[in-house]
Amino acid sequence: MNSEAIGKQTIKFNCPPAIISSASIVGEMEGQGPLAPYFDQIETDPTFAKESWELGESEMQRRAVQTAISKAGIPKEDIRYLFGGDLLGQLMSSTFGIKDFEFPFFGLYGACSTCGEALSLAAMTVAAGYAKNVVATTSSHYASAEKQFRYPLEYGNQRPLCSTWTVTGSGAFIVSSTSSEQPLSNYPHIVAITTGKIVDYGVRDNMNMGACMAPAAADVIYQCLDDLDLKPSAFDKIITGDLGKIGSEILIKILLDNGYDISKQHMDCGVEIYDDEKQDTHSGGSGCGCCAVTLAGYILHNMANHTWKRILFVPTGALLSTVSYNEGQTIPGIAHGIIIEQN
Amino acid sequence: MNSEAIGKQTIKFNCPPAIISSASIVGEMEGQGPLAPYFDQIETDPTFAKESWELGESEMQRRAVQTAISKAGIPKEDIRYLFGGDLLGQLMSSTFGIKDFEFPFFGLYGACSTCGEALSLAAMTVAAGYAKNVVATTSSHYASAEKQFRYPLEYGNQRPLCSTWTVTGSGAFIVSSTSSEQPLSNYPHIVAITTGKIVDYGVRDNMNMGACMAPAAADVIYQCLDDLDLKPSAFDKIITGDLGKIGSEILIKILLDNGYDISKQHMDCGVEIYDDEKQDTHSGGSGCGCCAVTLAGYILHNMANHTWKRILFVPTGALLSTVSYNEGQTIPGIAHGIIIEQN
Repeated sequence: MNSEAIGKQTIKFNCPPAIISSASIVGEMEGQGPLAPYFDQIETDPTFAKESWELGESEMQRRAVQTAISKAGIPKEDIRYLFGGDLLGQLMSSTFGIKDFEFPFFGLYGACSTCGEALSLAAMTVAAGYAKNVVATTSSHYASAEKQFRYPLEYGNQRPLCSTWTVTGSGAFIVSSTSSEQPLSNYPHIVAITTGKIVDYGVRDNMNMGACMAPAAADVIYQCLDDLDLKPSAFDKIITGDLGKIGSEILIKILLDNGYDISKQHMDCGVEIYDDEKQDTHSGGSGCGCCAVTLAGYILHNMANHTWKRILFVPTGALLSTVSYNEGQTIPGIAHGIIIEQN
Repeated sequence: MNSEAIGKQTIKFNCPPAIISSASIVGEMEGQGPLAPYFDQIETDPTFAKESWELGESEMQRRAVQTAISKAGIPKEDIRYLFGGDLLGQLMSSTFGIKDFEFPFFGLYGACSTCGEALSLAAMTVAAGYAKNVVATTSSHYASAEKQFRYPLEYGNQRPLCSTWTVTGSGAFIVSSTSSEQPLSNYPHIVAITTGKIVDYGVRDNMNMGACMAPAAADVIYQCLDDLDLKPSAFDKIITGDLGKIGSEILIKILLDNGYDISKQHMDCGVEIYDDEKQDTHSGGSGCGCCAVTLAGYILHNMANHTWKRILFVPTGALLSTVSYNEGQTIPGIAHGIIIEQN
């Protein structure tokens, strides 16, 4: 039996792809936060011993992919595709980070939702039999992102309380096909995905990414529950990417207005990754790397030890372009849902 | 029988997806070129009646998608996903161009190879049964691209003879699943794809994109022929995206050095789209829109009238980031191969 397109935006996989390994590489700030014990590497040099922040981010992504491959214990030649992206213009970090692996490459951009886009396409690819193993990876870097999207760090601008702190981190995942003969039962599985639409509520504040993304997160969570005829309680956790404190409040309110109360299940990677009181990060963490390293580290750890058996993972992205923002346009959002189960 | 992963980088589709409609929207310059009769719309206003070049590019992409849907004669609701991208930072043109369609969206970036990436993922998605119809679209705009990657147009810089002219154009395609019961025999079919790797020969000249991309095009064409055990003569045409005159020469030479003579079959969309003698475009056309509008217009026209029955379409991309370029990095290339057949 084939995988099934369900409802408007969901695919349920007949042989759910397994995440056979994951890796998380982070910077110093993340290594001082509450999730530190779960990361594979904490690097205190912000350039990762390279000549710029951007090349440092590439190096971080290279290390994440290399670590995920090593942990999977499979030769590089057994990996057929890489799905990846980052926040920088023209996916600079991915280009220079992964080129030496020589994997056939699908470059992706969904802002901070890219981790969800990469895992979705990775799962679709292996579930269809196009590949046995593929890599999904994303990264972000505080310094390279601030430089591109906001102010030079040297300027020392004030950050409003609704702002989030771009995570310096890269997560990588090896997604593998399964079959009834080889169910890979010990691993977490991607059982379904719900692909999000661009949602634009007209927010124009590039210091309040949470407000830009919350409507898109609400939209895709609503559609996932509707397509699969599930209630929020069907999940141990519903985990958004980087809405932060402000965005999380908006998300819960929008969904409540639409008949779903997710307040008991909801968790946000951006809220978890820093200790605001000690680290002064305001609304939380953000960036392509935020939910990727939280999934690779903390979340999959809690699935491996059976704390959570079924989660809805929802990376959230604000489609902020420096050009569109400077030309006075809105900041639309997008988010993608991934249902992960652990036996 | 399922589709088959063949060799190192190729997928052969058991039920090859059909391109049931295509649309091409171009600017004034393209409308004065030799391919003018094949385009759906030629717009003389460079902002497409919007307030900036960038929003004009969005409008062009919106029109391409709308026209492709209208030509297909199917309701918008029958389309399940959109795969798309452009050259601007953070896919600004796609974001604002397609958001009002409310399609679940996979944002892609492969520079000018994005059309190949979009068609590949579109074909993989429908062939796996995840959707019946999906859209693949890309766009580029001379003014928005020059502004972002090179000099302000007002500066009036000199262009070296190896430079190419970014095409103002957007192409869109409706890719649909087929089956033995519904083979859609009258349409062109995507029978196989070969996904490219990032290839870096160390070129650093942002005025010579052809040289940056030719090694990647050679790499993926070589791999396609090798994976499928074919000779260049198996194709009526091998059509690269936007290598231009200089890049095409390099491509043919690299492949000749590796045992394949494609000089009889090779054609380049960038060389075809302008009349250099009259239009002073130097090495040819380039951009995400170049091969997209040439495929949607001229190439599929020549397949529909049976001039060509089997082509290898190879969109080519130079992974040029303004940041990486200004930091002195190389410009790696990537290209993706799509085999299209018409009964």
